Amino acid sequence: MPLQDHMQIISVDDHLIEHPRVFSDRLPAKFLAEGPRIVEDEKGRHIWHFEDKIFPYIGLNAVAGKSPAEYGLEPLRFEDMIPGCYDPVERVKDMDVDGVHAACCFPSFPGFGGRVFLNAKDKDLAFACLQAWNDFSIDEWSATAPGRYVPLALLPIWDVDRCVSELKRVAAKGARVVSFPDSPVPLGLPSFHSDHWGPLWDAFEDTGVVVSLHFGSGSFVPGFSASAKALSPSFKGGEFKSVSARTGGNAEIKDDDAPTCTSFAVYATNLMWTASDLVFSGQLQKHPRLKFMLAEGGIGWFPYIWERMDQVWSRHRYYQPIDFDTRPSDLFKKHFWGCYIEDEFGIKNRHEIGIDRICVEIDYPHSDSNWPNSRKGIAASLAEVPDDEAHRIVELNAREVLNFPRG
Amino acid sequence: MPLQDHMQIISVDDHLIEHPRVFSDRLPAKFLAEGPRIVEDEKGRHIWHFEDKIFPYIGLNAVAGKSPAEYGLEPLRFEDMIPGCYDPVERVKDMDVDGVHAACCFPSFPGFGGRVFLNAKDKDLAFACLQAWNDFSIDEWSATAPGRYVPLALLPIWDVDRCVSELKRVAAKGARVVSFPDSPVPLGLPSFHSDHWGPLWDAFEDTGVVVSLHFGSGSFVPGFSASAKALSPSFKGGEFKSVSARTGGNAEIKDDDAPTCTSFAVYATNLMWTASDLVFSGQLQKHPRLKFMLAEGGIGWFPYIWERMDQVWSRHRYYQPIDFDTRPSDLFKKHFWGCYIEDEFGIKNRHEIGIDRICVEIDYPHSDSNWPNSRKGIAASLAEVPDDEAHRIVELNAREVLNFPRG
Repeated sequence: MPLQDHMQIISVDDHLIEHPRVFSDRLPAKFLAEGPRIVEDEKGRHIWHFEDKIFPYIGLNAVAGKSPAEYGLEPLRFEDMIPGCYDPVERVKDMDVDGVHAACCFPSFPGFGGRVFLNAKDKDLAFACLQAWNDFSIDEWSATAPGRYVPLALLPIWDVDRCVSELKRVAAKGARVVSFPDSPVPLGLPSFHSDHWGPLWDAFEDTGVVVSLHFGSGSFVPGFSASAKALSPSFKGGEFKSVSARTGGNAEIKDDDAPTCTSFAVYATNLMWTASDLVFSGQLQKHPRLKFMLAEGGIGWFPYIWERMDQVWSRHRYYQPIDFDTRPSDLFKKHFWGCYIEDEFGIKNRHEIGIDRICVEIDYPHSDSNWPNSRKGIAASLAEVPDDEAHRIVELNAREVLNFPRG
Repeated sequence: MPLQDHMQIISVDDHLIEHPRVFSDRLPAKFLAEGPRIVEDEKGRHIWHFEDKIFPYIGLNAVAGKSPAEYGLEPLRFEDMIPGCYDPVERVKDMDVDGVHAACCFPSFPGFGGRVFLNAKDKDLAFACLQAWNDFSIDEWSATAPGRYVPLALLPIWDVDRCVSELKRVAAKGARVVSFPDSPVPLGLPSFHSDHWGPLWDAFEDTGVVVSLHFGSGSFVPGFSASAKALSPSFKGGEFKSVSARTGGNAEIKDDDAPTCTSFAVYATNLMWTASDLVFSGQLQKHPRLKFMLAEGGIGWFPYIWERMDQVWSRHRYYQPIDFDTRPSDLFKKHFWGCYIEDEFGIKNRHEIGIDRICVEIDYPHSDSNWPNSRKGIAASLAEVPDDEAHRIVELNAREVLNFPRG
């Protein structure tokens, strides 16, 4: 058994569902009316209201405790989820059942990278909400069981100066990870190629906080039938307007004619794009201590993309504004960590990927998760792996990169 | 030396540049004024004119014969390219120098998948142009040196009935491959999930012609800073309009702030999306003899994506409209072939990928090509590979899937 009892599983990617009082317990009174609040509608559903918008899925994809045959129905009330989704005391019990020692929990209502606050009209309200979420994440959720949660924070991505000050604030009280958009571009923010983010990268280096880039945190859903269809010349205002004109009147398309599994299967392509942007941005050379975690994208594709990046670099560096001397794969290997739930091909190629760059994720309570059998699944994935390598992968790499030592 | 002299390299992905008379030699007189024609502008540049549009890059990325230090300058006149780009007699000489026996040549001016004809206003003119291109490709280019060119055709993708009849016409006179969009969706056409394409898939099965899906043929450029930025809420009409508003006035972005190598490096992600669409479409089960070639996407990522597709399928098939019984990886392995120029990781994992599913590409005259050292490069990539496997990869797989036997 390469996964020994003394090895503690540190998951770098889990999710929490905000309970109804996360914001109302913390916002100044003047913001309570517009701030995020749970409203029960006439059908008895629990729905987040924020400013003048509604967010109907309180627990998007929260399926922990269900069998795959029960997937597909979103929880409509908090009682439709097991309590570990939104209660940090219950979550620890669920982690114990699952054989998982520590979890790094991403937000739900705000979007993985804080998109909902970015899109708010009142940015003072949005900033108060963001700080409320961070205080909840660090002081309430993570403080419930010190050593069992890796504290994660969000940043006010619409204002880089406030990003810097908020990062310093949350780092000072224990945040180890910030969830940042996998690309700012689909959110309407400057890309990773812009110097705009430079002061923030400085602050990440100074604090040692890890930048976790979770698939989808930039609001881009991969796949030709999801985000990409919005690029179609006949897709306007959420539906296809003129396909029949383009096909001589002999075709009809429904808006959602592709099953969503076509996107699920290619989540990793977002993170390939992210890595390509960062590696060719020139920012890593200016910020040599930056650390990025690629969350929910697997690892088995790393060597293919490294080779491809290096080929492109070797041929095109002569005329493009990219670093002439530094191989992209070397930058990737220095600055990036990855994680997996099930990735037999990645584990088979672990030496090529780098034994010190692989972590594990549990993804509770989402549908990728094997809860309550995560430890069994990870043990099976490591069945052919020497003990010392298994220990690095399940625990030691995460403890080192996250600066999260055993208590 | 695993690559023996008797092994003939069959490239499944090369490119030709249309010479100035491709269309004018063939179009009916009534279409000559509006049809594609080369015009020399006041600066002496050769420029395609078609209807009321101009297409300034006659030889996009045609760099054969240049060193990487000379990349980045597009040819402005035919004389700026080596003649093998547009002259099939000279091309064979270039292939001889390169140690390559046969080439399958994609179009340039029409777009890899015929996008330019799709976008034409006059669809009768467009259809005449498309047939002219096919006649050129088969009767002029490929007929110059029988056995040295794998005849490739395009289809009138705006009209599925005409696709069927044109496929039958070109197959009857020797076409072995059709270049089809890697996704119809960004072109405003029904997706691969639609039954719209059923009659065409029937015709592909009946003719045995291979559907080649070349990266970019659907007009989608991967990467967050290319196509994806068009999805940004602040990107309108080709530029960012309101980024400064989203960042409190403290940011400026240029439209093209990402070097194009960020897209070059992730070309394969297009084909991952393509494969995900096709594998989950249900169409492969209805058309068991369909054959797809993934062109210019490498192979090293296949096992990662197979595993991921199977995981998604095993968890989400209960409620999504996808095949409950057929594993996605089995469909992929049955229906898809891939190719590579340099892919050390893919060749290392060739048994997992499937020795009978790997072909080679040369990509002359584009920047990925190693011309005039392609054979040396392929030999190096196969240095550790047994002779029989090398023979399958460089020649036999392509001959079988393309139905292109030795003369």
